[in-house]
Order: sequence, then C-alpha cells, then structure tokens
Amino acid sequence: MTERFELLEKALVKMLEDKKYTALRDVLLTMNPADIAALFAGLRENKMSLVFRLLPKELAAETFVEMEPDDQELLIRGFSDNELKAVLDELYVDDAADLVEEMPANVVKRILRQADPEMRTSINQILQYPENSAGSLMTTEYVSLRPDMTVGESILRIRRQGVDKETIYTCYVTQDRTLLGLVTVKDLLLADDDDTPVENIMSTNILSVTTQTDQEEVARMFTKYNFLALPVVDRENRMVGIVTFDDAMDVIEEETTEDIELMGGMLPSEKTYLKSSVWELFKNRIPWLMLLMVSATFTGMIITAFEGALAAQVALTAFIPMLMGTGGNSGSQSSVTVIRALSLDELKFSDLPRVLWKEIGTSVLCGVVLAIVCFVKIWLVDRLLLGNPQITLTVDAVVCLALLVTVVAAKIVGAVLPMAAKRIKLDPAVMASPFITTIVDALSLLVYFLFAKALLQI
Amino acid sequence: MTERFELLEKALVKMLEDKKYTALRDVLLTMNPADIAALFAGLRENKMSLVFRLLPKELAAETFVEMEPDDQELLIRGFSDNELKAVLDELYVDDAADLVEEMPANVVKRILRQADPEMRTSINQILQYPENSAGSLMTTEYVSLRPDMTVGESILRIRRQGVDKETIYTCYVTQDRTLLGLVTVKDLLLADDDDTPVENIMSTNILSVTTQTDQEEVARMFTKYNFLALPVVDRENRMVGIVTFDDAMDVIEEETTEDIELMGGMLPSEKTYLKSSVWELFKNRIPWLMLLMVSATFTGMIITAFEGALAAQVALTAFIPMLMGTGGNSGSQSSVTVIRALSLDELKFSDLPRVLWKEIGTSVLCGVVLAIVCFVKIWLVDRLLLGNPQITLTVDAVVCLALLVTVVAAKIVGAVLPMAAKRIKLDPAVMASPFITTIVDALSLLVYFLFAKALLQI
Repeated sequence: MTERFELLEKALVKMLEDKKYTALRDVLLTMNPADIAALFAGLRENKMSLVFRLLPKELAAETFVEMEPDDQELLIRGFSDNELKAVLDELYVDDAADLVEEMPANVVKRILRQADPEMRTSINQILQYPENSAGSLMTTEYVSLRPDMTVGESILRIRRQGVDKETIYTCYVTQDRTLLGLVTVKDLLLADDDDTPVENIMSTNILSVTTQTDQEEVARMFTKYNFLALPVVDRENRMVGIVTFDDAMDVIEEETTEDIELMGGMLPSEKTYLKSSVWELFKNRIPWLMLLMVSATFTGMIITAFEGALAAQVALTAFIPMLMGTGGNSGSQSSVTVIRALSLDELKFSDLPRVLWKEIGTSVLCGVVLAIVCFVKIWLVDRLLLGNPQITLTVDAVVCLALLVTVVAAKIVGAVLPMAAKRIKLDPAVMASPFITTIVDALSLLVYFLFAKALLQI
Repeated sequence: MTERFELLEKALVKMLEDKKYTALRDVLLTMNPADIAALFAGLRENKMSLVFRLLPKELAAETFVEMEPDDQELLIRGFSDNELKAVLDELYVDDAADLVEEMPANVVKRILRQADPEMRTSINQILQYPENSAGSLMTTEYVSLRPDMTVGESILRIRRQGVDKETIYTCYVTQDRTLLGLVTVKDLLLADDDDTPVENIMSTNILSVTTQTDQEEVARMFTKYNFLALPVVDRENRMVGIVTFDDAMDVIEEETTEDIELMGGMLPSEKTYLKSSVWELFKNRIPWLMLLMVSATFTGMIITAFEGALAAQVALTAFIPMLMGTGGNSGSQSSVTVIRALSLDELKFSDLPRVLWKEIGTSVLCGVVLAIVCFVKIWLVDRLLLGNPQITLTVDAVVCLALLVTVVAAKIVGAVLPMAAKRIKLDPAVMASPFITTIVDALSLLVYFLFAKALLQI
C-alpha cells in the first residue's frame, strides 16, 4: 500500500516536472482526496498552487480539508480572493471552523471576509464553544424535518436540501428547534406508505450531547453505539448541530495518541511526529525526564543509607538493576492494562476491589514463578558458572524474596494509581509507566536492603 | 454518563427482583442495544433468559450482537430451538459468522442447524477466510445494481431489498459480479433525472480490498478515507462482500489495544481486563517479565566486572538507579512516539534519516539540559546539603557525562529498533519500552563505568 503510493508519488512529480499537466490532472481525478493531500505534503510551495488549480472545484475542496494546516496556510497565501472564496463555498462549516481555528490571525481575517454571511455566522457560532467540546466539533448543516411532514414530503425535502448537508442519512425531527426524534433515510425509503407522517416512524429513543460535552465522551459514544451522526443540543435542549462519525474517528485517533504519549512520559502534542520540530519534541519530553531524574534523588539516598550493607556484601549491588527492572516492568504491565481499560470505559472506580484481587492474584503467581527461576539462575549461573564465591544461599534468598515482594507491590501500585487518578478527575494516563517505575524503584530498593539487613545481619 | 448508567442498572435490577416485568420492558425499550448488553453482563444466568425474552425480536437480536461471547453462550444454552432460530433470523451474516467463530463446537452445531440454508452458506463462506482478514470481517449482504439500471429503478430496488442489508447507503454497480463503480443513496436521491442510468452517475474511482487483506490495513483505510463501507473482492476481482465502518471501528480499537499491550510488555489478549482470569493475565504477562529478568544477568555481570571501581568509589553506586531510570525513560519516549507514528502510517522506513536527525537533535538538547541540572543538583543536594564527602567535582562530572551519553544513546536505540522491526515485517510494538529499557540499562552502566575508570583512574 505505502510502497505503491510512493511509486505513484514519484510518477506524479515526474509529470509535474515535465509539465504534462493534462495527464497529471487525469491521474489526480482517479485519486482520493486524502491521497492527493498526502502528495501535496511532499511538494514545494510554488508547485502546490499549480497542482491545486488542476483539480476540479469539489475535489479541490475535499483535498484541501485533508491537508495539514501548514500546507493549507501556504496555499491560502497563494490564493487570489476569488480562489479562496471558491474553496470556502465548497467547505462544510465544521471544516471551515477547524480551518479558522488553525490559521494565524491575518489569514483568518481574509477567510472571514471571503466566506458568505451565512457561513460566517455559523463559523463564529462554532468558534465560541470551548476547544475539544462537542460544540467545536459539530456542523450546523443537517437535515431537519417537522413531525407532521409525510414520508414523501421528507424525501422531497432531502432531495432539495441535501446537497449542502454533510450527511443526509440521519434526519432530525424538530419542533420549535426542540429535538423530538430521528429518522434515517433507510427508514424513509423502506416505509410502506409515502403518506405516513414522520412522527409515526421516527425513533424517539435518542441519545444526544450538549455543546459543552467533552469530545472524548462524544467519541466514546460513537464507538459504543456505532452512530453515523450524533445530535448536539444547547442548554435549553434545542438542537444546534450534529457531530458526524468521520470527525469522531479523528477524535478517537487523537485521544488515543494523547494517551499513548502520556503513557510514554511525554506531554501530548497535536502535531504528527515528522511535522514536529526538534525544539517542540524537546519541550514535550523534558518535563517528565527532569521530574523523574530529580525524584531519583530518593533512590540515591536509599542506596547511600545502606552503603554499609553494600560494602559488607559487594555482591548485592549486582542485582540492583535486575530488581528495579523487573519491578518497573511488572508495574508498567498493570498500569498500561488499567489505563487502557479506563479509556475504553471497561472499568469504573467501583471495580477497584475486583482489580485489586486480580492484580494480587496475578502478581503472586508472577512473583513466585520469577523468584523460583531467579533463585535457580543465580545459583547455576552466577555462583557455579561465573564462580562468584560471595553469592551464598542466603544472598540468593534475599534477592529472590525481594523480587517477589517487589513484583506484588509494583502490580498493586501500577493498578491502583491510575484508578485513583480517574477518581480525582485526572487523566489516568498521567500515572503511567515512568511515574510508577520511579515509585517502584524506591520501593524495591527499600525492600531489598531491609531483607538484606535482616537475613544477612549486616 | 457511567454513573448515570449505574443508577439505571440498579433500578432495573430492582424491577426484576420485584417482578415488575411490564415496567422493566418499557424501560428497556428506551435503551440502546449496547447499554442493554452491558446490563446483561451484570445479571445472573437464570435472570438473563428472562430479561432477554422481554425484548421485542429486533431489539433482542441487536442486543445479542453487542453481548460478550460468554454471555451469548449462556443465553444460547438456555434457548429453545425456536428461540435460537428467531434470533439467528434477525442477525446480519457477518455477526452470525462472528458468533460461530466464538462459540464452542456443540453450540456451533446447534447454530448451523437452526440457521436457514442461505445464511449457513454465507457463514461457511466467511469462515473459510483467515482470521483477521477482510474476508472474515465482511458481510455478504449489500445492495448491488446493474450499470444500465436507471436512478428510479435503483431507488425502487433499494426500497424492495434494503431491509435485509446492513447498509443501503453505498450501493455497488456490478456486471457479472465484477465491480464497476459505486453510487451512494445521496447520489441517487440528489440526481436531477430519475431516468439517468446509474453508470452515468456512478463513481468509478473506487478503492477495494481483497478477502485476504489484513484487518489492520482495512481499518487504516477507513480512518484515512472516512468510508461508510469498503468493497471486498476476490482474486478474480469479483465482488464478494463489504466491510462496514462499525466493524472497522471495532478493529481499530482492538488493534490499538494490542499495540498498547505489546508496548507495556505483555502478550496481547482478546478479552477485556475484567473478563480475564488471573491465570490468563499471568500467562500474558510472565513471558516478557521472565525474558527481561533473565537478560538482566548482563547488567549484573557488568556491575560485577566493575566491582573494584565501585568498591574504590562507593558513592558511584548511589547514581546507578537515576542513570538507568533516566535512560529508560528517554528510550521509552522515543520508542512510543515512533511506534504510534508507524501504526498511523505517518512514518515509512525511508524516513529513517529524518527520524535519526530529529532524535539526535532532541536527545542532545534533553541530555545537555538534564546533565547541567543534574550537575548542579548533585553538588547542592548530595554534596552540600546531605554532606557526602565522597562526591567530588570529578565524580559529579562522571555521572553527568554518563547521563548525557545515555540519553542520546537511549533515544537513538528507542527510535531505530521499532523502525527496524517494521522493516523486517515484525510488529514494531514488540520493540517497546521494556525491551529497549533492558538494552539501555546495560548500555548506561557500561558508559558510566568506562567514564569512571577513565576520569577517576580506578
């Protein structure tokens, strides 16, 4: 797939160089907007406008929507006022609102000047909602029907108005702008009698969100219920717009990436990796690194406190990395699992006892198996094979007991912290591996040295 | 949302206990299938059949599809043959095929016996495709049109056949089962003239997948192009079915969870966390823990090799956890970012030089800043505040130089390994944090001790 696309990309660039514009246009006409947009990302500025002008109006607008903000800005700066107006006329208002949100102020001014008054009003309406809310995600263009319209009249209305609507497949039945129910085009087409009023066939069992609903919640509803579109109402329960599934899919992708970035110990970023500058990557990565580095002072202090023990039994030092590493990995496993389950709404805070039970069971199993294998390995490899005489059976036992306790503690900490974060309305993903690893590091060292002191009498 | 649902759940269980079945049914009728299915998950076996029988036929089938396999099995075991047949008649074939895939052999036999012959054929056809392929994901029920049909005839056909099709919104124009083009219901409804043949308005610029295409690739196409449905063709390019967006969304969720589980150092599982037994969690988690524990033998060997140096400068031991931790975190940041970008198709192997450049730049910036802060912190806190006389300026310098080199090496390893995995067709997520941490642990210790030997002459 990707490789085929690279070949095509090369062919198209060649056509462009050879000025074979008709042929180039013919190929572009067979391509999808998302692929043409990907092609633009690889073109130089002056070529971009040239290729864009080859596209027919509708395809041009669809391609424009799929492009990266940087490329959009370059294109707009090269547009004449008429060209800009032509593109804007083809955009759905939610895409136009997204564009306005992304562009710098002077470009926004030009866009709002060229948009027709109706679109300008809608854009401004959408922009007043908080970022990441259903209001900022919605489009105000949907098909609305009156309850007393017949099936035949409704179909006629769709045929007349549908061209400007982002989706016609779900129609909303409203009275005085209050949402009463919905009918799908499937319902309408499959209705037995064209004279039935839509209120008789509409479904009144509808879920809606308010303009203030967080986009993550909106996305979750799409995944759960497989909607094509979801109505958005204001505080007075009047219908103001719809969110369509394509925007919801984008949100899901964005929110998942955000979770993954947090789990990896980074601040989330809206830019793709390749579009992010070194400076931006640095800014997203340094805060957690710095915090965790400084908090490692504690592990250092623990080691310093037990310096005497370590000097007496030098062999103990060799197992510190293994203990800390296994503890960290055990904790990550639990935290990652719980964070994902929380994101997918599979877990609630009230499940905490069940989670604890599962983690204790799993960690004891893992810990015992690891400890036994470790005990045998240390004896066979470190003592017999590598011939380290400092490793006595007691030293071996200290390491493996500490390992068992560390694994259990790590799994409990790893599972509980994200759930606690959720409880106090923090993003559970913040409590991810790097954070938990630091806690577990300190914990494992403490356990290790306490066992050592007790069993080795040092 | 979730809390509101818990309240509702309690109310419904109360109604059930009080045997208020009519009231219970009325409430269920206002609920979405996915929510009713969630309710079932909390019911005991004997109550399940009772509640299920309260639901009208269509809602019952829709709810059934949303249920967990375990619950489905329990229900089926309680069904009479007639009840089973009634549910099967309402299922779309792709859902029926999924069900057959999940159930144990004796239940499958009963299902196939009760399914009507046409559905049985379709189920068997779908089941012959490899798991996780487009073929196993598709439904064979779609609207097909002939190229010479007019818009009016096409609409009539949809009205007659649509009730059994999973989607009517995208119709496929075929001749001798070869896919020629597609028209949407929107195209048909908005066509100016009912007598236009569909071949004049159909879009011939269509993407399709074959029955063998991997479901991850299918899901990616849905995210990229925002399709409602995607046609599936066989090796002779004849149309055999469609994949609908709801199934694609499920795949996206499943594949993302798989990536996240791999990144957390676990074998991926198809069960949700709460449904997994302790034994299953153990089996998924122990392999990586075991592997990484055993491979930590190397870090142990490195420490043993430099035992002399550590004995000469006991203070050095205190900084081992900080060095390893910061190295591990730096590596995770890069690997997680690169793995996610690869999953989203934002990165290709040929981008390796750009990735290297970005990671080197970012890691040098991070490394220098961390090293400077660390240097000052060690001097102020460990030397002056905690008054550790063993910490000289040279010791401080050794730690911070090792930190800088470790951060740079960790970020390069973290970014390159997932890309290399992709290149050799391994899942990049396998090269995730725990694996990279282990490599970086060994690397950081080696660098640390080499600097110590060189600068401290020990």
